[in-house]
Amino acid sequence: MHLDEYPRSSLLELQSDLLEQYEQFKAKELKLNMARGKPSSEQLELSLPCLSILDEQSDLFASDGTDCRNYGVLAGIPEARSFMGAMMQEPAENVFVCGASSLNAMYDTFARCYCFGQLGSTPWCKLDEIKWICPVPGYDRHFAILESFGVQMINVPMTEDGPDMDIVEQLVASDAAIKGIWCVPKYSNPTGTSYSDDTVRRLASMECAAEDFRIFWDNAYAVHHLYDEADQQDQVLDIALACKEAGNINRYIKFASLSKITFPGASISAFACSAENMAEAQKRCGAQTIGFDKLNQLRQVRFLKDMDGLADHMSKHAAIMRPKFELVIKKLENDLEGFGCSWTKPKGGYFVSFTGPNNTAKRVVSLAADAGVTLTGAGAPFPYKNDPDDAVIRIAPSLPPLEELEQALEVFCCCVKIAAVERLLDKAE
Amino acid sequence: MHLDEYPRSSLLELQSDLLEQYEQFKAKELKLNMARGKPSSEQLELSLPCLSILDEQSDLFASDGTDCRNYGVLAGIPEARSFMGAMMQEPAENVFVCGASSLNAMYDTFARCYCFGQLGSTPWCKLDEIKWICPVPGYDRHFAILESFGVQMINVPMTEDGPDMDIVEQLVASDAAIKGIWCVPKYSNPTGTSYSDDTVRRLASMECAAEDFRIFWDNAYAVHHLYDEADQQDQVLDIALACKEAGNINRYIKFASLSKITFPGASISAFACSAENMAEAQKRCGAQTIGFDKLNQLRQVRFLKDMDGLADHMSKHAAIMRPKFELVIKKLENDLEGFGCSWTKPKGGYFVSFTGPNNTAKRVVSLAADAGVTLTGAGAPFPYKNDPDDAVIRIAPSLPPLEELEQALEVFCCCVKIAAVERLLDKAE
Repeated sequence: MHLDEYPRSSLLELQSDLLEQYEQFKAKELKLNMARGKPSSEQLELSLPCLSILDEQSDLFASDGTDCRNYGVLAGIPEARSFMGAMMQEPAENVFVCGASSLNAMYDTFARCYCFGQLGSTPWCKLDEIKWICPVPGYDRHFAILESFGVQMINVPMTEDGPDMDIVEQLVASDAAIKGIWCVPKYSNPTGTSYSDDTVRRLASMECAAEDFRIFWDNAYAVHHLYDEADQQDQVLDIALACKEAGNINRYIKFASLSKITFPGASISAFACSAENMAEAQKRCGAQTIGFDKLNQLRQVRFLKDMDGLADHMSKHAAIMRPKFELVIKKLENDLEGFGCSWTKPKGGYFVSFTGPNNTAKRVVSLAADAGVTLTGAGAPFPYKNDPDDAVIRIAPSLPPLEELEQALEVFCCCVKIAAVERLLDKAE
Repeated sequence: MHLDEYPRSSLLELQSDLLEQYEQFKAKELKLNMARGKPSSEQLELSLPCLSILDEQSDLFASDGTDCRNYGVLAGIPEARSFMGAMMQEPAENVFVCGASSLNAMYDTFARCYCFGQLGSTPWCKLDEIKWICPVPGYDRHFAILESFGVQMINVPMTEDGPDMDIVEQLVASDAAIKGIWCVPKYSNPTGTSYSDDTVRRLASMECAAEDFRIFWDNAYAVHHLYDEADQQDQVLDIALACKEAGNINRYIKFASLSKITFPGASISAFACSAENMAEAQKRCGAQTIGFDKLNQLRQVRFLKDMDGLADHMSKHAAIMRPKFELVIKKLENDLEGFGCSWTKPKGGYFVSFTGPNNTAKRVVSLAADAGVTLTGAGAPFPYKNDPDDAVIRIAPSLPPLEELEQALEVFCCCVKIAAVERLLDKAE
């Protein structure tokens, strides 16, 4: 029976039971965290050998003879550009290897557009307004970059195929102030959606009023499958290929990092783009730095070796992540039947996107916090932290060990039910 | 006898001798590089143990319990902030530890001023013009940052006490478009000058028409002495202290890195500033990154340990650098007497600034290049690469081994003499 159909007396009885259960959770004084997409200790241990790959006896020269201990090499050593290029489906010369944070690479790329424009266009800082398309729910840190630059963000809903392209096409065709779109094309944060080929082609070929429109293609989960079987792994059409075919080769900028592969915030990141965009980026970046950490480039690439080495390594991550995702889905299915909730069932990435009844998300996050379970803030997956329905919660199951995750999910489900019942009782009044 | 007093016939004879000597150098097919301030292999080897400081068995937690393998900690782990703070004469809370490049930290700091202003001031990108004071000769990469943002650079000559403060004070008092000044206060690049206490106090206390005037204090050579004896080491008054005393605590931003201490471009850098500036920087940087490489912070600090460890380490660098600087001075003194040249005699840093007769610097660099000796480009130490006198050449003696340096200096002195004689003969015509 669906909760809506409960008589008021049953709702009150259920509420009383749930609150009792909730108090029991509180009494346990839990301290569990499902807030961020952080790898677990078990995952981090997979990469420990990476730390001693370089030592006093190591050959510290790159394949082109560059001494990685000294200054030089703006866009990365050849083997790092090749490795990241293979991962990003780009030739090495289209790849710029950056520091430990792809977020930083995205921020810097946006900042270059803002300060200098793109390929001769007016610097965005000189325009009266800048707008940006934000598929929602999406990644909070993407939105934070735009917010810090005062960009007006436009919500476009995610479908099962990616952003709703009917809406996107209409928007970008008619408004030259819209300068770009955020995309997490594979196992999207937080829905786990992978873009269909049709979506990729439409993004690449759509008419844009802004000549310097840019797709920020954050392929953060490109190799982060939950299953080893090829037919259980999502594939996304290469945006570079689609842009080239559409005659818009300068439209995309790809981003990736090894953060959720080796060490978050201590590995390497990269961006990739057309030859023209790369030439401009190198010119600009040449004023910003002499070059990024080449010893760490060497360390990361020697550890992962090549795409086979990468796949083997990611398979070990998957073996740790898989049971956590399966547990999330099982718990939600078991506990929340009839409560008007829905959730995604990703085959990769770091998140499950949960949608409760309207006007409950904030309440759930707050209840869970009081019971010692930290969730991602309600609203976080939306621009300005504003979920118009107050319904979406991002579940990040990676960090806690399996046993803790199970406890956290029990608390979570209890809080969802309490909030759902409260809303119904409120409505009835 | 001074060259000016030579009769024309003697000049021609000298020229012929010099050209013969020059051809002999060319025949050697040398390939020597004195272009950049890069540490030598011998110096890099001092830090090799740093590579194996962290391994699979290491404690990878920071002093506050942060797991350095995972995401988090925007401004740096406590021990890294403390270490850099001790080096920069700042409490840890005023220090933000960045990635491997202090140049990047400076560029980013400038870019934040440009995009967002400082403490509520108008973003510099919204202004019609921005100007900046550039003490000359100075550091080419400082000027390249400003040039990329279209900032109008104003040359101010360096004196033996730092920038000519009479000129600086007059400029900044009268022009609100002047937003800042580059300073390399100790063993300045390229003159080796250290600022006098009076210069520091005048910088800190001068009246500035721009309320958001900033001193970019690039203390790149803070611990890079050539001599171990305290009385042979320059000391510079702390700009933070001077700004505080003058009631202008928000005026300075300090920069430093371990690049010329451990591994250039693969260590850590930092900026330091007042509490108000730091709060704003953290807010802005929080949109740019989750945090910089904490494993490398741990690695660097565990290797150098503390200020005593740092001093010991720098003493080893000095032992390698000292004979090179002494050789430079000795060669110049021996070879160039009477040729109308002058040069600085630094007690630290990475450079000697050489001033030849007017209108000879480009010719010398070109002659040297043809004989296989790469020098820093003539004009490089000036904004827009424009040395109005075409007289200054930056000598960077660190990279080549001592024997190669001697050869390179012989070529250099020969080229200087050829160019000097040519100019006199040209004049006489």
